[in-house]
Amino acid sequence: METHQLFESALDSKYILHGNQLKDRYSHIWRMDEPLKASCLLLPTSTQEVSAILKICNDNKLNVVTHGGLTNLVGSTRSENQDVILSLERMNRIIEINENTRTATVEAGVILENLHNAAEDLSLQFPLNFGAKGSAQIGGIISTNAGGLRVLKYGMTRQLVLGLEYVLADGTIISSLKTIIKDNSGYDLKQLMIGSEGTLGVITKAVLKLVEKPTSRQAAIAGLSDYVNVMKLLKKADAHLSGKLSGFELMWNNTFKQLTAAGAHVRPPLELDHKFYVLLESQGNDDQTDRRELEKLLENMLIEEIVDDAVVASSLSEVEHFFRIREDVSNLTDHMKYDQHFDISLPIPAIDDYIATCYKRLEKLDQVDEVYAFGHVADGNIHLMIGKQNDSMELKVEIDQIVYEGLTDLNGSVSAEHGIGVDKRDYLNISNTTEEIELMKLLKKTFDPNSILNRGKIFEL
Amino acid sequence: METHQLFESALDSKYILHGNQLKDRYSHIWRMDEPLKASCLLLPTSTQEVSAILKICNDNKLNVVTHGGLTNLVGSTRSENQDVILSLERMNRIIEINENTRTATVEAGVILENLHNAAEDLSLQFPLNFGAKGSAQIGGIISTNAGGLRVLKYGMTRQLVLGLEYVLADGTIISSLKTIIKDNSGYDLKQLMIGSEGTLGVITKAVLKLVEKPTSRQAAIAGLSDYVNVMKLLKKADAHLSGKLSGFELMWNNTFKQLTAAGAHVRPPLELDHKFYVLLESQGNDDQTDRRELEKLLENMLIEEIVDDAVVASSLSEVEHFFRIREDVSNLTDHMKYDQHFDISLPIPAIDDYIATCYKRLEKLDQVDEVYAFGHVADGNIHLMIGKQNDSMELKVEIDQIVYEGLTDLNGSVSAEHGIGVDKRDYLNISNTTEEIELMKLLKKTFDPNSILNRGKIFEL
Repeated sequence: METHQLFESALDSKYILHGNQLKDRYSHIWRMDEPLKASCLLLPTSTQEVSAILKICNDNKLNVVTHGGLTNLVGSTRSENQDVILSLERMNRIIEINENTRTATVEAGVILENLHNAAEDLSLQFPLNFGAKGSAQIGGIISTNAGGLRVLKYGMTRQLVLGLEYVLADGTIISSLKTIIKDNSGYDLKQLMIGSEGTLGVITKAVLKLVEKPTSRQAAIAGLSDYVNVMKLLKKADAHLSGKLSGFELMWNNTFKQLTAAGAHVRPPLELDHKFYVLLESQGNDDQTDRRELEKLLENMLIEEIVDDAVVASSLSEVEHFFRIREDVSNLTDHMKYDQHFDISLPIPAIDDYIATCYKRLEKLDQVDEVYAFGHVADGNIHLMIGKQNDSMELKVEIDQIVYEGLTDLNGSVSAEHGIGVDKRDYLNISNTTEEIELMKLLKKTFDPNSILNRGKIFEL
Repeated sequence: METHQLFESALDSKYILHGNQLKDRYSHIWRMDEPLKASCLLLPTSTQEVSAILKICNDNKLNVVTHGGLTNLVGSTRSENQDVILSLERMNRIIEINENTRTATVEAGVILENLHNAAEDLSLQFPLNFGAKGSAQIGGIISTNAGGLRVLKYGMTRQLVLGLEYVLADGTIISSLKTIIKDNSGYDLKQLMIGSEGTLGVITKAVLKLVEKPTSRQAAIAGLSDYVNVMKLLKKADAHLSGKLSGFELMWNNTFKQLTAAGAHVRPPLELDHKFYVLLESQGNDDQTDRRELEKLLENMLIEEIVDDAVVASSLSEVEHFFRIREDVSNLTDHMKYDQHFDISLPIPAIDDYIATCYKRLEKLDQVDEVYAFGHVADGNIHLMIGKQNDSMELKVEIDQIVYEGLTDLNGSVSAEHGIGVDKRDYLNISNTTEEIELMKLLKKTFDPNSILNRGKIFEL
């Protein structure tokens, strides 16, 4: 019997794709030139169907790779010819949005932007936000504990998941779709599923926390000459703006220059000679008060010589203009022959020296053309974009080592938000002790003794 | 060999208490008339000592009960004559408070209030706050995922733990004292330890998240005649006060009356004829602006007839006066012959009907004198205090059943914040499915195959 035929007891045959039916399918939306490797692709519409499928895979020891929006950056959805692909795209219902519990109950295949829109119709907001929102699906978002642009105010995905339904490797359904904020009745099992990259179970539904939609959004860009002042500005902004500070993004001088260079879609709102640029965002409920509050903060920062120059957006369209500068990362990468990117995390006071050392050592490599640093500095999360001359494994590893090797001593992380997948598997020990990795593997073996769930992701057993 | 002698290889004998040395020791600070049951009590000062102790216990299959501040309310520290007690009270160092990472690295035995004070010296705040802060220790706080009065703004303990060091049953030390906010490198193991009530490991150190200390604190008390308006007020307050709303506590009419009755330490700031009383708190940075903001909110609520009457505290001492009303729970219990208390959690829209039904059914019981409801309504967490005539198991179970039995259908929880311990063990299945409980037990067996860690707490294996 061919693999796809095994699933005819679980699923209508039109939702079992195989052979030629896979030709328009991919394992990654950024690498759509690579055809999908798979024995078949299954399109369930219910948790019960997912359960039946996993039971069959477990009984037959078939590796299952679960597809969400395929926007992952670390190879978490990579598959082989014999693998079974489970796509939750047909499980895309927003089951309920409740104004009083301020929760959304959704199926795993709901696209983030669709949830944003549905919440906004009720003057609510699902605060998680990042570039791939038009494709990324809730199941993938939870299984990677996605971060993004507003972690400072609202936390990572983990902080926004109240309830979860998922299926274990043997088909057991664990359903806990609670809409409550507090639950200390036993181990909080869902925490293990969040961020486990599809290796411990398949998420089918979730209850997500919503917040009242802010009605005012302000932004400013400040130029600073010293990293100590960046830290001072963060503390002052957080204190002064109380709970309203929602973004604090740092761009190094060369990054800011490139983001606003000729050919970029946006003009620089400040002179180009500052060592650091900080983009601040606040979210509140009164446009005039909130803008005045941000202006007042920056006036004080100028007087205290913490900030050298600053401009506050005078309208929502200017706020959006400021954000385009930070978000339009294609201005950094479009002209690169090959690129390599990072999402490291390290203690805030160590960032300046660490990144300076990275720049110095990376720029010494003949095959490296450019290095751009920027990121969610308030979260200690810095992205590096590196332009290079070739795609060799040797160069990749050399660059990896420069960026990662100091992180162990700093108690930092090789991944703040993208996860490990296969691309960072060799570096898991940079940010985890041997004992931690052994404990992770023990959990993997306990949950998935046949190793059928996204085998080889995070670690090889 | 006697049990206490086994530990002479791990610990200086003066830190091994046994026999008569245990006579001033208790298993619970609320029940100090009950002498401690134990074979010995060990007082380690380092993680290595804790590791050596657990290894001995594991090799000899000795049950270990870990003591923090002993403020638990569900019997989590109850012990038997043959048990080994591990008290972390000598591991009470605040290792570092860093203003720029805004973290505190502490040993498990640090008392919450001491951390509060140390953070405040640097204009920082550890936001977790509750009545037992003068005794409760960080290790116990984390192992029970404590909640308290400011969960609405800052989250439960879980949201405030960035790094954790703990010892597994076999003595393995898992140390991940990261000061970073984001880390997606593999499974987030610490999440399993948080809230596991000492059954999966012994917490020895933690890195906790601090926030900039707010410089203004406001409060108001509002009287409302309808629960729908309580929900409306919550939504309006959250929207209007943006990130500043830090408390939203509900008191039922009879509870408010009793809290402010003759003999209570505080006078009622409003008439006593409102069906519901809401205590609001906001935390910001500008006393005048913040008070005006709260006043404006309540003016609007009066105009919109959501609120029937309201008073905003005009000074910090009045804020504290308002809080004393809510916090001085002894006014509810002092005169009770016997009492029974609950910390249930349920969806916000269901609270009014649910509590009304509880009142009605409980008041019908001959042996029940009084029922008082109040709680963190914004978190869906309601406390019930019940005064009764006798301490019989039969009456206790009857009351338990009335309070718990509707929670399953509502997807609520038998414990929002106190945990399960032994007292709620029989009700774990009210808020967890059979599959969830089986998975919890599987984890327990994986982490602690000899079941030496706080045996019999949460569930019996």
